[in-house]
Amino acid sequence: MPTSVEDSSPGQVAAAADAARRAFGATASASDAERALWLEAVADALDAARDDLVAIASRESHLPAARLTGEVARTTGQLRLFAAVVRDGAYLEAVIDRAKPEATPPQPDLRRILRPLGPVAVFSASNFPFAFSVAGGDTASALAVGCPVVVKGHSGHPELSVRTAQIVADALARAGAPEGIFGLVLGREAGQALVQAPAIKAVGFTGSLAGGRALFDLASARPEPIPFYGELGSINPVVITPAAAAARAVELAAGLAASFTLGVGQFCTKPGVVLIPASSGFESALAAEASAHDGGRMLTSRIAEAFPEGVQRLVAEGGASVVLGEAAQETNDGSAKPVVLAVDAARVIERPDVLLEECFGPATLLVRYRDSAERDAVLDAIGGSLTATLHAEPEEDIAALADRLAGRAGRVLFGGWPTGVAVTWSQHHGGPWPATTSALHTSVGATAVRRFQRPVTFQDAPQAVLPAALRDENPLGILRRVDGTLTREAV
Amino acid sequence: MPTSVEDSSPGQVAAAADAARRAFGATASASDAERALWLEAVADALDAARDDLVAIASRESHLPAARLTGEVARTTGQLRLFAAVVRDGAYLEAVIDRAKPEATPPQPDLRRILRPLGPVAVFSASNFPFAFSVAGGDTASALAVGCPVVVKGHSGHPELSVRTAQIVADALARAGAPEGIFGLVLGREAGQALVQAPAIKAVGFTGSLAGGRALFDLASARPEPIPFYGELGSINPVVITPAAAAARAVELAAGLAASFTLGVGQFCTKPGVVLIPASSGFESALAAEASAHDGGRMLTSRIAEAFPEGVQRLVAEGGASVVLGEAAQETNDGSAKPVVLAVDAARVIERPDVLLEECFGPATLLVRYRDSAERDAVLDAIGGSLTATLHAEPEEDIAALADRLAGRAGRVLFGGWPTGVAVTWSQHHGGPWPATTSALHTSVGATAVRRFQRPVTFQDAPQAVLPAALRDENPLGILRRVDGTLTREAV
Repeated sequence: MPTSVEDSSPGQVAAAADAARRAFGATASASDAERALWLEAVADALDAARDDLVAIASRESHLPAARLTGEVARTTGQLRLFAAVVRDGAYLEAVIDRAKPEATPPQPDLRRILRPLGPVAVFSASNFPFAFSVAGGDTASALAVGCPVVVKGHSGHPELSVRTAQIVADALARAGAPEGIFGLVLGREAGQALVQAPAIKAVGFTGSLAGGRALFDLASARPEPIPFYGELGSINPVVITPAAAAARAVELAAGLAASFTLGVGQFCTKPGVVLIPASSGFESALAAEASAHDGGRMLTSRIAEAFPEGVQRLVAEGGASVVLGEAAQETNDGSAKPVVLAVDAARVIERPDVLLEECFGPATLLVRYRDSAERDAVLDAIGGSLTATLHAEPEEDIAALADRLAGRAGRVLFGGWPTGVAVTWSQHHGGPWPATTSALHTSVGATAVRRFQRPVTFQDAPQAVLPAALRDENPLGILRRVDGTLTREAV
Repeated sequence: MPTSVEDSSPGQVAAAADAARRAFGATASASDAERALWLEAVADALDAARDDLVAIASRESHLPAARLTGEVARTTGQLRLFAAVVRDGAYLEAVIDRAKPEATPPQPDLRRILRPLGPVAVFSASNFPFAFSVAGGDTASALAVGCPVVVKGHSGHPELSVRTAQIVADALARAGAPEGIFGLVLGREAGQALVQAPAIKAVGFTGSLAGGRALFDLASARPEPIPFYGELGSINPVVITPAAAAARAVELAAGLAASFTLGVGQFCTKPGVVLIPASSGFESALAAEASAHDGGRMLTSRIAEAFPEGVQRLVAEGGASVVLGEAAQETNDGSAKPVVLAVDAARVIERPDVLLEECFGPATLLVRYRDSAERDAVLDAIGGSLTATLHAEPEEDIAALADRLAGRAGRVLFGGWPTGVAVTWSQHHGGPWPATTSALHTSVGATAVRRFQRPVTFQDAPQAVLPAALRDENPLGILRRVDGTLTREAV
């Protein structure tokens, strides 16, 4: 476990992966109750160290202390949710089909369960120093199901990464978790080596499209390819219908302004493209509301540099016009101010490669559509997104439009704003490419554990050999499918 | 839809993929009840055409009519199982968390469901002309959840592929399924083009390690990477303990002989490596039992040519000795005869690259181990397998050994033989690389549908917009998780 913020050496990466490999037998055979306690021990330790951690995070990420304090609570709540998921037991997906000796051919006794996949590499994100970082959702969901974790800490908050990792490792050790269950490496090359380490069996990643694609390619090209769960860029389209714009332009503008500027626009769910009816006056309403938002210091100087470059590309190459703010703003001090751009739908359909690219920071692009055909053509040009949002009036028939949005996004919102991702049983934080590298999976919510489990079916196994979840008497009392029927009864 | 067995042109591939893309809206919005009826219509049509199909299959694949007749029943049973899975509704994984306005931050109403991924390409296998071919498990599971399918037919049974595809397409059309829901292409280059077609969103494949890896690489390298579910090679280790060998060598030898020669050894679950106690006399017992099996005509001349090459590699490079049969047998007539080889465990640990490679055909390699350390070292050298089998006596403590086997395989058998894969709710036909390209998924059993579904969460959606499975009153009467609790109650 590193004690300084220096890049990890190849030997240190190999050692961390090897320690995870050696720990796997013990983490996999630990009981659900034990693993739930490990997660809760980590949550308690992070809560206890909250103020220290927030001070470091605030200095490194430039995010406000209040936001970071809330993020710690979200992170520890997430660890506790996964403890509840494990105790519930349905995540094991136990299925039992009893023998049918009379069938043709005779059918054996078959019992299926999900088992941990193996050691997991987790790449933490810059924009959520707690919730998507060292002790974030990827780490929590992997530990929950019995996978050791090696985190690659983000260069945007290295001191926080080291400090958090120490707290996590200490808490796990005190709770009786096996040695080697948790490790940390730092540095870009260390991350690449980690993805290629033979001991690593899956990768969780939150970050940029370019960085994620490069690591996905490495994971896929291994002699033994492994799943790479990358949450990448997302444009998060919003559609405002003519009726909604007519009924409550100011209210919608206020909501949008708050959402696209939240956290200096550094949310993966930031509304990046907003389809508005042409000649609705929504542009001026948004300009008025957004001008009340200040902007602020961005996460890193590299992100601050890239922001005006992205905005200028939308203007110079895309032909968007500036409704509010400065496209070519100076961000040498690391700060950025809100920018609202606007463009006609026809132009987006011509140049989706430029105008539908994510611009990370406090900017949003209003796209003026003249009719539903233009609106749908723009939506069809947008790649997969984490979210899609619709603002309509109650009397409108929105079924077809809602279906179109559901076809392109992992979460579809009605009347809200996409920033803010509740950690619940039902949450899905994912979506078709390029939002993620795996549309089947989520990095937030109870089902995030599924990424790190693989099925095993036992055929005619003696009771003593079976995992508790598959034994006749159902000692865990969990829901199982027995001979096709869901039940908690004993077999 | 092809009417001849010629290779499909690039234009035909593009047309099939495009038809699937256009059909997707209608297949995705069809109700569960409708899709279940489509599957049953296909099953009924295949059953009705059984004798004709078996005659073609027998001529093309050289498999016996009795086996093929059974395989048709298995295939139509599989279609009907997926109809039952769809009607059951749990495959939708409906999860509802009601709004909590009092929470910090306030939590919206969130409702999650699984939706079809999009058009699916299916690569059929040579060795199961029905069950893993045009109307096999991949096709059935994709259609079940609302994905159009384009099959790449296998060159080993082209006429059967064309005829089966016609029956499937006609049955679907008569049952009211949308146009374009099902297509067929033929030829190696057509298959490569299909994997790269932008409309295709996932691939199911059963075939060789080399062929599967090449297509996996194509799927992963696409501008929009897509999941590739490949079932590839598998060595399917069997362990016989000293006590079992001592107690019932002849019975075990008879079972093994029947299993490794079944279908001329052309099962993906064929026991390829059998760990036996050194000096147990099992080799001669197996030689005696296997000599009663004749061998037969293989699926294709290419497979027949490759078989003695593989056996000779085990002997010449691996140092295995021939216990029964001829390593350098003549297969010019397309037929192969059983071969039993044997080698010391120490040699396997030295040359796993040669001795643990799958040899497709009626051969099995006995590996003599002197103690449990040698046995475990061999098991640890074996890559992921579809199955692992243990033969032990009831009084033995096999927990650690069973756990080791479960760590390397998708199905662990106790006292049976791995050939024969029951199609049930609990079946898992998969495993870690190189058994498959995706250890998380199965190509047989009820959960095979999961490969072709992605989650979508609706936030604060009006009731009218929600899929039926997520509406308050639970009109489908399915099991749902509501506020963390599994229930069939209305919300």
